[in-house]
Amino acid sequence: MKNRKGNHGGHKIQIIPLGGLEQIGMNITAFRYEDSIIVVDCGLSFPDDDMYGIDLVIPDTTYLQENIDKVKGFVITHGHEDHIGALPYVLRDVNVPVYATRLTMGIIENKLTEHELMDVTKRKVVTFGQSINLGDFNVEFIKTNHSIVDAAALAIYSPAGIIIHTGDFKVDYTPVYGDPIDLQRFAEIGKKGVLAMLCDSTNAERPGSTASEKTLGPMFNALFEQHADTRIIIATFASNVDRVQQIINTAYKFGRKVVVEGRSMVNIIRTAQELECLKIPKNTLIDIEQLKDFPEEKTVIITTGSQGESMAALSRMANGQHRKISVGKNDTIIFSSHPIPGNERAITNVINELMEKGADVIFQDVHVSGHACQEDIKLMYTLVKPQYAVPVHGEFKHLKAQAKLVRDLGIPKENTFLLRSGEVLELNEDGAEITGRVPTGAVLVDGLGVGDVGNVVLRDRQRLAQDGIVIVSFSVNTASLELVAGPDIISRGFVYMKESDDMIGEAVDIAEKEILKFLDKGRLDFNKLKIAVRDALGDYIWKEYKRRPMIMPVLTDITV
Amino acid sequence: MKNRKGNHGGHKIQIIPLGGLEQIGMNITAFRYEDSIIVVDCGLSFPDDDMYGIDLVIPDTTYLQENIDKVKGFVITHGHEDHIGALPYVLRDVNVPVYATRLTMGIIENKLTEHELMDVTKRKVVTFGQSINLGDFNVEFIKTNHSIVDAAALAIYSPAGIIIHTGDFKVDYTPVYGDPIDLQRFAEIGKKGVLAMLCDSTNAERPGSTASEKTLGPMFNALFEQHADTRIIIATFASNVDRVQQIINTAYKFGRKVVVEGRSMVNIIRTAQELECLKIPKNTLIDIEQLKDFPEEKTVIITTGSQGESMAALSRMANGQHRKISVGKNDTIIFSSHPIPGNERAITNVINELMEKGADVIFQDVHVSGHACQEDIKLMYTLVKPQYAVPVHGEFKHLKAQAKLVRDLGIPKENTFLLRSGEVLELNEDGAEITGRVPTGAVLVDGLGVGDVGNVVLRDRQRLAQDGIVIVSFSVNTASLELVAGPDIISRGFVYMKESDDMIGEAVDIAEKEILKFLDKGRLDFNKLKIAVRDALGDYIWKEYKRRPMIMPVLTDITV
Repeated sequence: MKNRKGNHGGHKIQIIPLGGLEQIGMNITAFRYEDSIIVVDCGLSFPDDDMYGIDLVIPDTTYLQENIDKVKGFVITHGHEDHIGALPYVLRDVNVPVYATRLTMGIIENKLTEHELMDVTKRKVVTFGQSINLGDFNVEFIKTNHSIVDAAALAIYSPAGIIIHTGDFKVDYTPVYGDPIDLQRFAEIGKKGVLAMLCDSTNAERPGSTASEKTLGPMFNALFEQHADTRIIIATFASNVDRVQQIINTAYKFGRKVVVEGRSMVNIIRTAQELECLKIPKNTLIDIEQLKDFPEEKTVIITTGSQGESMAALSRMANGQHRKISVGKNDTIIFSSHPIPGNERAITNVINELMEKGADVIFQDVHVSGHACQEDIKLMYTLVKPQYAVPVHGEFKHLKAQAKLVRDLGIPKENTFLLRSGEVLELNEDGAEITGRVPTGAVLVDGLGVGDVGNVVLRDRQRLAQDGIVIVSFSVNTASLELVAGPDIISRGFVYMKESDDMIGEAVDIAEKEILKFLDKGRLDFNKLKIAVRDALGDYIWKEYKRRPMIMPVLTDITV
Repeated sequence: MKNRKGNHGGHKIQIIPLGGLEQIGMNITAFRYEDSIIVVDCGLSFPDDDMYGIDLVIPDTTYLQENIDKVKGFVITHGHEDHIGALPYVLRDVNVPVYATRLTMGIIENKLTEHELMDVTKRKVVTFGQSINLGDFNVEFIKTNHSIVDAAALAIYSPAGIIIHTGDFKVDYTPVYGDPIDLQRFAEIGKKGVLAMLCDSTNAERPGSTASEKTLGPMFNALFEQHADTRIIIATFASNVDRVQQIINTAYKFGRKVVVEGRSMVNIIRTAQELECLKIPKNTLIDIEQLKDFPEEKTVIITTGSQGESMAALSRMANGQHRKISVGKNDTIIFSSHPIPGNERAITNVINELMEKGADVIFQDVHVSGHACQEDIKLMYTLVKPQYAVPVHGEFKHLKAQAKLVRDLGIPKENTFLLRSGEVLELNEDGAEITGRVPTGAVLVDGLGVGDVGNVVLRDRQRLAQDGIVIVSFSVNTASLELVAGPDIISRGFVYMKESDDMIGEAVDIAEKEILKFLDKGRLDFNKLKIAVRDALGDYIWKEYKRRPMIMPVLTDITV
């Protein structure tokens, strides 16, 4: 194939996801052209169920650290946790400038302040339509719509061609705040010739088009009309400023005062207000302490916890642990959200608890998605007409659903790439192939520790969780080969037992016999002695209980 | 109100759920009239996510044990785990006869055999229409439909009136096997006057009627037609004999051989075949070892694992751990099931893994429910016309949805009872009220232990899972008040560390200082010494790591 522009001499651009498929949520993708690297987004994911004690999971950025002199900056599409959450951790090792639109940067700055990184992080707020030069790259921010204000797609210009990264997007012709997605600009760039598009796949399984955020306004009005006699509590995503705006509009219309509850929501609402992305009529927002000054049917509480998160405000209201709001028969509670897969059980538990307190709970259909459905995805591909398709943002089944859609639009299978973390896709107009792999992975954050909990520690936690621990302590005089003290046995998380229990007695006998047998042989290998005691006790416990607690021999050498 | 029959002199019947709302799945309800108690069902539930290491949860049957001389028997509605699963455990303490229909008893007997309880358990197979005398009660088994063959409703006759317990049911006018639900009999008993009905609430939130199991036949035919060139693997519930029958019918039609895979399914299919609830054409069923003798597109595998259960056959195929079946591009995999709430994440993971192996996965709409939807529930209430409504089988939100339906049918709110576990509802024609509470609860089964893991052990497991354990061992001469050995520190599940690490060194210093300070004071209270060491180390670790591992001081008294 002949180079259309003939000016990039066969040089290729590399697309390298550093997270994604293996850890959904860890959205971070490196783009490299020669000695220039830019990184799009820097998200975190939440721990799997079996990652006991882990708070967050962030990407391994070894690749960026090893090429730190080439990394020109982070370019951020929008302010959701799965796109910005890892920044405060990653910036410590990869300290390069951060580029983002206004609200996105506002939310990032909240995080940097909390992590005391404001002074050491270069930041630049970018406006839609603006381009920034980053080494061999030029990156243009294009207006899109999403479930958060100020979301952007990126046009990444390189000597090897133009790449469009849609970020997370929907097509909203009537957004609540700001402009609709800049479809003209996508078309215009498409007309120039786009090498590849990385396109949001989240809703690629869903037919049709995603409804406008604005369709919820009349629904809120109708619900407020129907429940005019009760207090109304609405749970939604902390960052959905447009949703909050619509609830506030309806509240104002019905003469209700509004309380915002839940730390993350309070923070984002404050930032959105400061940046004028949210317009609150005077005397509408009140402090939670003022609730008692108004009749219940004249108030609305907008709260976090729509995903059943155990520490969120709504969950605390549901289980009676909220210090300032107690839910009862005079409450209508609306879930303006959709369960994120995996949260269904937790959400249902909260709904049941709220109903048991007598509240009326509405949990269906008061939500629209922030992601493009099939017809919207087709529209985007038809405007941009990329040579290569790289479905992103979703589980494997979502990427595959987009790949299927794309084939119907005339992009051949061999031009569609479902990339795994670390795979290096090298491409230009003449071809595209996966040419290598860079190190990637999940770094676990537990408390203040970043990366100090690995597989060994996790396996131990799983084992401890499963059957607990049995500690057998004894002291040996290594000179005389005598058992000086013990064995004593204590357990935690194994089985409820009093010291006098038969089991303890028998276990002590077994351990003692094993120790004495060992000492009789005149052996002194502490390690072997410990293993012998562990195995003997393990066999006994398995036989009696069919459980496998961790058995920890604690041997003290007392040679007086 | 005057007694209509005038022959029960104000005596009342008691309805006492011994499980249910607090532990969904633990379906077990006692009915008491004077000195006669019968128990309907004896189900188990599965552990919540935070019940680490627990295999099963069964009901506390203290109430039955304390009244063992009055308990006449278990009357079982159908053979699902949440209705029979606790029997092998409960029968050890409450050894009374078990009454059930044919397939239900077959499945129960499989369990009793496994638990070596066949010889000590009295059993009686009951046919539909048959009544059994149990003390003051007479219990009639009425034919219903459900997602398992031989499901029954119960008409419980007592001197205080008739109670209908629907069991789990749907209205299927065209069942795959056997007769439709015996609506005439419900109407006939309803005509006599029914005191109360306990009615399945699972689908009380769903409008319309539940589709017939038979509607799936044409769907399987169409899917086999479309995927004529690939092997077909179908995952469904092990106990849904009718579903298996339809898959076998379609397989036979298309000339495919059938393999049944997964222990629980193999067992139930064998029992169903023996009882002639399942008709398999000759030369259709083959052994898994024979798969290799047939072209892939001439085989079907029916398997367990439709809920993403980690040890089930389908999950092992998905993650490449199945020893006999490896999934690839030539497989069409059909989920003939609906996610049970809480299993969505696990199921999605299995789907993604299967797709990554290249398989075509169909996971929507190849299923019908086994439970009555709103119109079916209304039909049942309209036939039976009970004086009191007691919605059962479901979460609180389901019970509440049925309570709402029932009000539209003319049963007043004060005649509807949403019972919690242990509540005693006393009723006759003259009135109904909750008059007391009997002990109930969840007994945890872990390995061979039944009830030996309680809250203390679970809390320890949760703590160990969260942050691991740090063991600090040291030996003290209590005569001379000297530190003879240690302190030594080892940890598991806390943080990955080499012995040489700074943290260990510093922690040892802190522990040693604390011990010496204590000994210097001439104190000898071992307990106080341990607490002091634990607190000092705990503070240090929280400061350094923001974690709270369990800290276990192991103190040996060496007085030579």
